[in-house]
Amino acid sequence: MYANGDIFVGEIIGTAILILFGAGVCAAVTLNYSKAKSAGWIVIAFGWGFGVMAGAYTAGPLSGGHLNPAVTLGIAIDTGKWDKAWLYVAGQMVGAVVGAVLAYLAYFAQFNANVPGGGKGSRLLGQGATPTLGIFSTIPEIRNPVANLVTEVIGTVALVLPVLAFGLTEGLGESGTQTLLVAFLVVGIGLSLGGPTGYAINPARDLGPRLVHQFLPIPNKGTSDWGYAWVPVAGPLIGGALAGLLYNAAF
Amino acid sequence: MYANGDIFVGEIIGTAILILFGAGVCAAVTLNYSKAKSAGWIVIAFGWGFGVMAGAYTAGPLSGGHLNPAVTLGIAIDTGKWDKAWLYVAGQMVGAVVGAVLAYLAYFAQFNANVPGGGKGSRLLGQGATPTLGIFSTIPEIRNPVANLVTEVIGTVALVLPVLAFGLTEGLGESGTQTLLVAFLVVGIGLSLGGPTGYAINPARDLGPRLVHQFLPIPNKGTSDWGYAWVPVAGPLIGGALAGLLYNAAF
Amino acid sequence: MYANGDIFVGEIIGTAILILFGAGVCAAVTLNYSKAKSAGWIVIAFGWGFGVMAGAYTAGPLSGGHLNPAVTLGIAIDTGKWDKAWLYVAGQMVGAVVGAVLAYLAYFAQFNANVPGGGKGSRLLGQGATPTLGIFSTIPEIRNPVANLVTEVIGTVALVLPVLAFGLTEGLGESGTQTLLVAFLVVGIGLSLGGPTGYAINPARDLGPRLVHQFLPIPNKGTSDWGYAWVPVAGPLIGGALAGLLYNAAF
Amino acid sequence: MYANGDIFVGEIIGTAILILFGAGVCAAVTLNYSKAKSAGWIVIAFGWGFGVMAGAYTAGPLSGGHLNPAVTLGIAIDTGKWDKAWLYVAGQMVGAVVGAVLAYLAYFAQFNANVPGGGKGSRLLGQGATPTLGIFSTIPEIRNPVANLVTEVIGTVALVLPVLAFGLTEGLGESGTQTLLVAFLVVGIGLSLGGPTGYAINPARDLGPRLVHQFLPIPNKGTSDWGYAWVPVAGPLIGGALAGLLYNAAF
Repeated sequence: MYANGDIFVGEIIGTAILILFGAGVCAAVTLNYSKAKSAGWIVIAFGWGFGVMAGAYTAGPLSGGHLNPAVTLGIAIDTGKWDKAWLYVAGQMVGAVVGAVLAYLAYFAQFNANVPGGGKGSRLLGQGATPTLGIFSTIPEIRNPVANLVTEVIGTVALVLPVLAFGLTEGLGESGTQTLLVAFLVVGIGLSLGGPTGYAINPARDLGPRLVHQFLPIPNKGTSDWGYAWVPVAGPLIGGALAGLLYNAAF
Repeated sequence: MYANGDIFVGEIIGTAILILFGAGVCAAVTLNYSKAKSAGWIVIAFGWGFGVMAGAYTAGPLSGGHLNPAVTLGIAIDTGKWDKAWLYVAGQMVGAVVGAVLAYLAYFAQFNANVPGGGKGSRLLGQGATPTLGIFSTIPEIRNPVANLVTEVIGTVALVLPVLAFGLTEGLGESGTQTLLVAFLVVGIGLSLGGPTGYAINPARDLGPRLVHQFLPIPNKGTSDWGYAWVPVAGPLIGGALAGLLYNAAF
Repeated sequence: MYANGDIFVGEIIGTAILILFGAGVCAAVTLNYSKAKSAGWIVIAFGWGFGVMAGAYTAGPLSGGHLNPAVTLGIAIDTGKWDKAWLYVAGQMVGAVVGAVLAYLAYFAQFNANVPGGGKGSRLLGQGATPTLGIFSTIPEIRNPVANLVTEVIGTVALVLPVLAFGLTEGLGESGTQTLLVAFLVVGIGLSLGGPTGYAINPARDLGPRLVHQFLPIPNKGTSDWGYAWVPVAGPLIGGALAGLLYNAAF
Repeated sequence: MYANGDIFVGEIIGTAILILFGAGVCAAVTLNYSKAKSAGWIVIAFGWGFGVMAGAYTAGPLSGGHLNPAVTLGIAIDTGKWDKAWLYVAGQMVGAVVGAVLAYLAYFAQFNANVPGGGKGSRLLGQGATPTLGIFSTIPEIRNPVANLVTEVIGTVALVLPVLAFGLTEGLGESGTQTLLVAFLVVGIGLSLGGPTGYAINPARDLGPRLVHQFLPIPNKGTSDWGYAWVPVAGPLIGGALAGLLYNAAF
């Protein structure tokens, strides 16, 4: 239904907006010199949810706004149409990288002040620097790959099964009301299932920004933790596939 | 209108999603090693409300998405159609058990770390374990069965009367806008009427997870408090019946 | 358009639900032994907003769901139809009284524990009782009748002018989407304009529960503060009238 | 499509409502003797978002409800129709001034109590006065004009590009569902991108209230900081233009 070029461009734009909002809200509550410093989990969850809303609805006319390889996988299993799936995923990966760079630019001064004491003339003298990976990618609270994987699988089923049940086989962004439902669904997943791993539920959302974190010149940025990187890729893909199979069996 | 098999499967899936989100958000704010630890009542209320939204809308095409014996009872009184009510309730009970197990799996590592000091290598040394029943079922702040029952009756009328007035006699999940209204209605009940008892307002929501709590091998899980278990069953059923009668009288 | 009996009953039911949620959320964050104790302004504002949503949408099929004499006044000035206005207001006053009693019943055990030390076996020994008027009616932070009146006038214009511009001349409750907009409008007024006086913006919302507070046997309930009671009646009525006149002039 | 007089009046009313809510919520969380004192970033972000909702939907029938010169600019670039753009911007500036005065009046007693110790009979004896510019206009957390400008550009693209993609070329206020989406979009921008500069993303929103702050007789009001005033004007205009160009290139 969507033209190939539109799919690629739409997924880049939509996923870039998603990650700009998502990494942005994590920067907002994490970094010093941010007005939203320590503003809490409710801010994180709504920030990511409205990022999905903004990205999906913007990309809607171009690609339907999947923004997530796990969604693309679930829809492909549901519909049996696989030919454009890799185009979607390619756009999502590019978009996730672009979005992470944009979030870095939006918080450029804050990232540069991430030095012990907060830098020149700071009111934070004596305070240390903040690890920054959590702004870009997910970090589990308890490092247990099997448990972390299960958490990501469950969270992703909770995303993709409702999306399929909503009949959004062309993507999320066709209808304003559906887009609101998906946005609040993502808020709900964050509130309810984000506690253990930070809810990647989207391989591009985690992998793209992790690449960006690896290469950005952020002072005191800490590790990019590649040992964990496979979990938020494999978990959401398994979850998306499970949701597609479950949907085909039950509906 | 809905086929029997679809009703049973739909209510299982929908109620499982509801309880996954609801028990999930209670785990998220209760357990150590959760990013949402102590995130507050606003998180609880929105988590449960979006759980209703996700479950009802997913179940909508199959069963209409009652997800709650009190809703099924109110609709049966309103419409006079009782023949499929037990099918709905059976699905709801199975779904509630499934959902509670899924929430346990999503927070598996957190539950297992519920030991004094938080377990091996913990930064929580010297801190005790957390009682876990409140993650699964409701506990009154002041134990007063009559007052607790009245609170549950009022909360359930505040749920079922609007649902009936919305004209949702086939269930919650037919329309995206209606589903949003019901979701925010549940958020509002939580914010406003959840203070004294934790707002079961749904017998399956309380009884199913309490059964699961009884049998799960959670360390230091504490009592399953069966002495209180009849209140969050009887109160919502009385409330659902009252709402059906009130609706028939007034509308 | 609506039958007289339906108007009266609809406004009673709708306003009772509104005040049940509104007084309920104030009890939830104020009283000891409430799970939402001290949960903050965001909880208050969303609780009242979703109370308007629940009440208006329930009353919609019967009366349109005004629930507020200031809304009724603004609509009467806009449409020039005055004959049923007092019927609306009478229902609103009865409903506000009923709703306040229901909120008292929902928090019965909490109100009864409002004694120094929290009563028998309490974990709150040594803590005093809490004044309870703020659960039922509004109290200004700075007592300055002219300034308080201006605040209530501005808040009510901010409610009634958008309602009229939404074309809701038959009331709030005809459309789900409109009802969501009005609900979030009320949340917004609470967040933005509730700081100085607690935003009555509705004479029935303040006067009905104040009457109930006067007569209920709550221990240590404190004053019902009748010296201030005219402000949250006069301010909203002036605001509703101003909004009607402004709407007729500008639209 | 809209008559010239309606555009001017609509933008005045709509922008006045937007700023009344926006400056109001900043007063609510900033000033002493406000019930929402220190209520946090979630309150700020939802207050501004629901202000956009209220203002845009009220202005919708008259002007479409742009309320923002950056939106007007993006729409003009998208549609190629420039003839009424200045009429929109003129109304927006007048409305922003009116709205800031209304917010001052709503918090009149609080502003007047902004003296060390809180004034006569205060419970705040010994506490100092609060700087008030942040209630009216934006202040960066780290003063770095280039970085601040980039932040405002990115935030405004994140507003105007989705608005254009929603097909809102006649303005925001035509559809209730679209208005909800735009409201939550603005909440999301606040949560995610507001940390560094306080997210003007609207030249009128910052410049009009700054003028008002300059002239109002607020005790201890502090500087109006005109040295920074160009950033929240230039940044949003660049962002609106970029969004228009990007939209024309990609869609």
